[in-house]
Amino acid sequence: MPVHNMMEDAVRDLIDKQWDNLSVSCHCDECKTDVFALSLNRLNPHYVRQQSGSAYVKADLMTEQAKATLLTAIVECAKVVSAYPHHHRKDIK
Amino acid sequence: MPVHNMMEDAVRDLIDKQWDNLSVSCHCDECKTDVFALSLNRLNPHYVRQQSGSAYVKADLMTEQAKATLLTAIVECAKVVSAYPHHHRKDIK
Repeated sequence: MPVHNMMEDAVRDLIDKQWDNLSVSCHCDECKTDVFALSLNRLNPHYVRQQSGSAYVKADLMTEQAKATLLTAIVECAKVVSAYPHHHRKDIK
Repeated sequence: MPVHNMMEDAVRDLIDKQWDNLSVSCHCDECKTDVFALSLNRLNPHYVRQQSGSAYVKADLMTEQAKATLLTAIVECAKVVSAYPHHHRKDIK
């Protein structure tokens, strides 16, 4: 059952573009991935059957309003990860 | 940034086990995938950084209460897909 959460692409794009501008305590890849995962948990998923309807969802997620909502979630999650970084923690594996 | 929505595994397992018992108008793979995608859009995502924390989330999603919540969403989404099947539709590609 091949499905894809289009929200992943939208959030990944935005984090990649804004990562250097975000005020985070650590810019390592693990913290970046934690901000990504946490943001996706706070935003509504937009799953599509692969190849089906993805253009419509993509257009929806590219509006300025949608980007502002996504960026707000990313900024909030960056604060959480900065306060409680999990990089190099072996006990949560 | 490798992340994974643990909810995908939990919902996929449950749909695979219950698919033959669900009252759906069509049992084709496309309708099954639509029920899967729609269910994931209705349920809260549980993204984890890959290899990190997945055991805890998996345990959370395997409780009887969690399974009941998932199954309720799946049954509702099966009704929606049965009423509005999108199989073989070329216009939504």
